[in-house]
Amino acid sequence: MISLRIQEVCRKTGLTKKAIYFYIDQGLIMPDRNAENNYLDFSEADVDRLQIIALLRQYNVPVGAVEELFRYPSMTNFYLHRQLADLRAQLLRQLGLIRSLSTLLTELPPQYNVANLKEQVGRSTAATEADQSMLDLVCPDQDARMISIFIWSSFLNVPKSEYRLFLWGKITEQAQQELKGSLRYVARIIYALDSEQIENDARQRYHDSQAILKLQEESYGQLRQRIMKRLRHLADDPRDQAYWTLNYEKVTLPLVRFVNGPLGDLIAEYNSEYLIYLKNMQRLAASVRRELLEGAERDLYERLIRVLNGKLDLDQYPGLISFYTFEMGLYMILPLAKQRQLLEE
Amino acid sequence: MISLRIQEVCRKTGLTKKAIYFYIDQGLIMPDRNAENNYLDFSEADVDRLQIIALLRQYNVPVGAVEELFRYPSMTNFYLHRQLADLRAQLLRQLGLIRSLSTLLTELPPQYNVANLKEQVGRSTAATEADQSMLDLVCPDQDARMISIFIWSSFLNVPKSEYRLFLWGKITEQAQQELKGSLRYVARIIYALDSEQIENDARQRYHDSQAILKLQEESYGQLRQRIMKRLRHLADDPRDQAYWTLNYEKVTLPLVRFVNGPLGDLIAEYNSEYLIYLKNMQRLAASVRRELLEGAERDLYERLIRVLNGKLDLDQYPGLISFYTFEMGLYMILPLAKQRQLLEE
Repeated sequence: MISLRIQEVCRKTGLTKKAIYFYIDQGLIMPDRNAENNYLDFSEADVDRLQIIALLRQYNVPVGAVEELFRYPSMTNFYLHRQLADLRAQLLRQLGLIRSLSTLLTELPPQYNVANLKEQVGRSTAATEADQSMLDLVCPDQDARMISIFIWSSFLNVPKSEYRLFLWGKITEQAQQELKGSLRYVARIIYALDSEQIENDARQRYHDSQAILKLQEESYGQLRQRIMKRLRHLADDPRDQAYWTLNYEKVTLPLVRFVNGPLGDLIAEYNSEYLIYLKNMQRLAASVRRELLEGAERDLYERLIRVLNGKLDLDQYPGLISFYTFEMGLYMILPLAKQRQLLEE
Repeated sequence: MISLRIQEVCRKTGLTKKAIYFYIDQGLIMPDRNAENNYLDFSEADVDRLQIIALLRQYNVPVGAVEELFRYPSMTNFYLHRQLADLRAQLLRQLGLIRSLSTLLTELPPQYNVANLKEQVGRSTAATEADQSMLDLVCPDQDARMISIFIWSSFLNVPKSEYRLFLWGKITEQAQQELKGSLRYVARIIYALDSEQIENDARQRYHDSQAILKLQEESYGQLRQRIMKRLRHLADDPRDQAYWTLNYEKVTLPLVRFVNGPLGDLIAEYNSEYLIYLKNMQRLAASVRRELLEGAERDLYERLIRVLNGKLDLDQYPGLISFYTFEMGLYMILPLAKQRQLLEE
């Protein structure tokens, strides 16, 4: 086993001693102390980790987020996408500043005194739509990929292959193109959550997809009952109704459209289990829909239509109901007021 | 006389109390204390100044620079241009970061663990030439205007008029177009100086231009002697020679071309005194050139050619000599090593 002194670690990682001591303080690495001379002994794993920390810090990932990332390593993709979204937002503010200052300078006469700046007080430095289009052109947002990873995470965890990498490239490219903007509220909500919330949700989601994947004739009834129970709860609980109506146009419908869009075929190609999952899911949704619209639960349906202000189009979106049961949880974690704020801007 | 309480000042300026107290601590404003109740009494001038401070801080001008700006108010244009240059440099770094992270994300497979990031260690986040072109497209640098103000400051201090504002627009536009990039080293050096150095230089420059403007037949000899003295010094002093050869291609020639370019006509239109100045300057340069090339100072000329490694093209640039005497001082303030570094990148 290799063990290195701090000087060598500095050289290898490009970090300063001070930075390394700081990461030790933060518990990000825990090198041993040499029993003889009391020096720190860094293992190869410590060095690897420090190099990754240096890489993340290079992208301005805050130290707190670096810590979280090591605690929730499966969130790597999520974190890096969120960091990109943060950097883009900063760049946009910066563009607004620059454009505003640049315009100010073109308007100033050559002899100008700081006191004359009074006339300029109140200038806006907000980014314009032109700045936004420019940013999108130079560096498109990558939120669609993040959301794809998120939604299909249960089906993406299969061995890597050249063909799958190729497919993944197609999936993300298509997601990006199809979804320009329409999933931006979804992205906002997801980025506002913390790792624990997301990881818990991913675990639940995985569990549910496994159950749906293994659906047998006899287990349909069980899941259908779970859905009905959720729907009754929705019909009774004003808080859930508030989330539903708040999210309906900006979050729920775009997501349902996305999940049922053409990308599903590519996901099925990526992992053939997804085909079975989709078929079972559609069967489940159809049977729930039948029960609501024509069957024993017609009353429940009418109550739902009333409390949700008609925001429940089962004809066009039969998947809405299962979405509410299996996926909506994540979009109901943030306090309502916070969420309203995120969806307003 | 109006006097305001701090609450009202907060409301008017959008600043917090804490920020206002901080600016008082820094000596940027000095409101009186009310003798009766010991409250701070803010004057209208205090409020004006705070509003200007808030405006400058909005553009991220560091507090230290805000202080300097109030100490050297004639440097306003310089400071704002330098701020723009800083913001552009930051934006460029940010663009490099974003592009690098964005590329990284497109290469990552969907299931990705923080430990796998090891393969990404060593990625460059430097901005590319494409980033630079994009930035130039979206927000062209404004250094040419700053340099114009700088070089012609002695002739710009005339009463404002609509026509002059129009001319100024043309001057800066033309400066911008003609000088894409070729004055970037000049800008770098100027931005690396501090206000005192620049203000001193501007004062000296103003003094010299007044002397040249008022040249009479009998005073030519005097200025010619001053020039010859500088040249003899140059021939003897290795340090000055080092500055000369270092600056020749990247600073001196672009500046001489700029000053003698078509913008001169517009400056003459802006302030007709400039015409007289130019004529006198040309006459002075021609007589010095004659003396060096064909007259009594031929030996000096040959020594100069030798010590400057031939970097003295008086045929194409007769203005070189007067540039060295009257304007080069500013480009010899920074330590040689620092300057070499600025000109290298």
